[in-house]
Amino acid sequence: MAAGGAPLKVGIVGATGAVGAEIIGCLETREFPCDGPPVCFGSSGGKTVATANWGDITTEKFSVDAVTGFDVVFLAASGDFAEEYADAIGSVLAEGGVVVDNSSALRYKDGVPLVVPEVNGDQCEGASVIANPNCTTAIALMALYPLFKEFGLKKVIVSTYQAASGAGAAGMAELRDGVAMASTEGEKYVDSMGRFKEKVPNSEFAHPLAFNVIPHIDKFQANGYTKEEMKVTWECRKILGFPPIPDAAADAKLDTAPPKVSCTAVRIPTLRAHSEAITIETVKPVTPEAARKALTGFPGLAIADDTDAGLYPMPITSTGNYDVEVGRIRQNDVFGDRGLDFFICGDQLLRGAALNAVLIAEKCKA
Amino acid sequence: MAAGGAPLKVGIVGATGAVGAEIIGCLETREFPCDGPPVCFGSSGGKTVATANWGDITTEKFSVDAVTGFDVVFLAASGDFAEEYADAIGSVLAEGGVVVDNSSALRYKDGVPLVVPEVNGDQCEGASVIANPNCTTAIALMALYPLFKEFGLKKVIVSTYQAASGAGAAGMAELRDGVAMASTEGEKYVDSMGRFKEKVPNSEFAHPLAFNVIPHIDKFQANGYTKEEMKVTWECRKILGFPPIPDAAADAKLDTAPPKVSCTAVRIPTLRAHSEAITIETVKPVTPEAARKALTGFPGLAIADDTDAGLYPMPITSTGNYDVEVGRIRQNDVFGDRGLDFFICGDQLLRGAALNAVLIAEKCKA
Repeated sequence: MAAGGAPLKVGIVGATGAVGAEIIGCLETREFPCDGPPVCFGSSGGKTVATANWGDITTEKFSVDAVTGFDVVFLAASGDFAEEYADAIGSVLAEGGVVVDNSSALRYKDGVPLVVPEVNGDQCEGASVIANPNCTTAIALMALYPLFKEFGLKKVIVSTYQAASGAGAAGMAELRDGVAMASTEGEKYVDSMGRFKEKVPNSEFAHPLAFNVIPHIDKFQANGYTKEEMKVTWECRKILGFPPIPDAAADAKLDTAPPKVSCTAVRIPTLRAHSEAITIETVKPVTPEAARKALTGFPGLAIADDTDAGLYPMPITSTGNYDVEVGRIRQNDVFGDRGLDFFICGDQLLRGAALNAVLIAEKCKA
Repeated sequence: MAAGGAPLKVGIVGATGAVGAEIIGCLETREFPCDGPPVCFGSSGGKTVATANWGDITTEKFSVDAVTGFDVVFLAASGDFAEEYADAIGSVLAEGGVVVDNSSALRYKDGVPLVVPEVNGDQCEGASVIANPNCTTAIALMALYPLFKEFGLKKVIVSTYQAASGAGAAGMAELRDGVAMASTEGEKYVDSMGRFKEKVPNSEFAHPLAFNVIPHIDKFQANGYTKEEMKVTWECRKILGFPPIPDAAADAKLDTAPPKVSCTAVRIPTLRAHSEAITIETVKPVTPEAARKALTGFPGLAIADDTDAGLYPMPITSTGNYDVEVGRIRQNDVFGDRGLDFFICGDQLLRGAALNAVLIAEKCKA
């Protein structure tokens, strides 16, 4: 980043988790102007966090006092932690300091901007607490926003293919161990015709994930959707400038109707990067060519759409990358000349979490 | 099955493949009235097919002469084979004999019924060659058809989660070997943070499938869809009683407009059973309760929809079962009171191939 002023004092709460580790990686590779190593807080102190530039950092026990005067504090902890501490931290930071929270606890709160910097980064202005969106939402919006601006969006239907690391490092380890057992130990767990026999152990997921598909992420809501699915609906609305929770009376007063968004969120046996199959109905007519033009050059988005060359978005090509890939762009006949289908894939630990958080901090402190 | 007459002479072309093996399994478990072991044909003769009831069967080299006078011949071979031989076989069978073809070659041909027995089994009447539908389509229709009958269908949007065995036994072996390497050999292929390093080998799939997602099944068409995706569109139309390939002039003469169907077909790292996230717009208003009522008791379909109990369709519960599972039934707000979302999972080697083929034969010979 182009940093104007003095080096910044940075703290990370939850530095030992998967997202915490990626935040450190983003600070390093993006050369965020830290005033020395970020101060790392874990649930207990005394743990070691390995970094590329700063060597081993020992975690400290968190207290509000410990971050007083800091410029940026990243929260990669629970929603309960954010509810309890985000405002308190915000009030003791240096002038213009910012708390960037990765949990979902504050995302729908009035006065807390919910930000994808490339989409609504202007809302960072003046805020001391900013919420980082749900990973599926942040990845989807990298393609949805340029299309929303150019063609308008009436309907958005999303089916997700979400990786085990969405449940943290423990989720990744559980899948890895499960497939190792199921693929190597003879036919104890899965026979040669692919039939499941004995179950591999599970605790991070509701069912064993090895060679399985689990259409259940986060808690079920009264309307039959999961909270993960509703996050996509609510957060797309808020980030695109509408009230997050649908309210017929409030919506009736808007100049533009908010897009109707629905999602089916599905956990699949991949380790990292979320894919999404998206169908949209636009307000204005759209063609794949016009869509490609609108998407080309949008920062944080890479077109991967050359089917003759076997090029389309996949975890194997998007994992570890800052850009979200979009491809398989085609006219969707169900909605005729206002219909478009596409497929996206993005690293949910980066765009869906750590990178987006660091980009917010850059925007605030530029 | 309830067999009326004399035992039937049965042949299977392609008996050494994944579908061939499952056809034998279905004949055995359903006690199909075979006149002794089915005659098994492979690309070369002299191979052994292990069976539960009939011991080892040695394959023979196929010729039309070899099936003359047979009652049922199952083709689990290529489209080219079906194009070349289906009619010739049909013409030498015993009276009322039937060829059931698993390839896609004959599915859109006039005069060849394309059949899911529970949906349009009456079309078997008098046909000597019958096409077995695409696996994704057959699985989807087990839930779509009862809804179509009760509420009508205007729009159908499908995203699939398809298993490696859709590419046969070799596809299954490639995935199994790939994940074994990627999950056990240290960090050579995938590091501890889920980042891909060296690629595991691939030849059955366009890219390595281990821990990956490949939105590419069958060949790409001029419209940007794959042939697998178009099969779902074309075959849903034909099986529901409309011309398979959309034709505006022909459609205009119909009493009922055909549903518009679009699909995104995606290969994921599972071994067996295809899952599908489906969003529909109905003609008449629908509620999840009314949909559940319409789906309950439909033969070949099992309701797996108790989210409080962690019950929803998954490969781990549907693999090896004859019934397709449907669950996650909920109102889809994008289409309001005519919108429904649901998730299905079915064993594509059974309902999507072998079982459906044997059910067709039962229907013809009952």
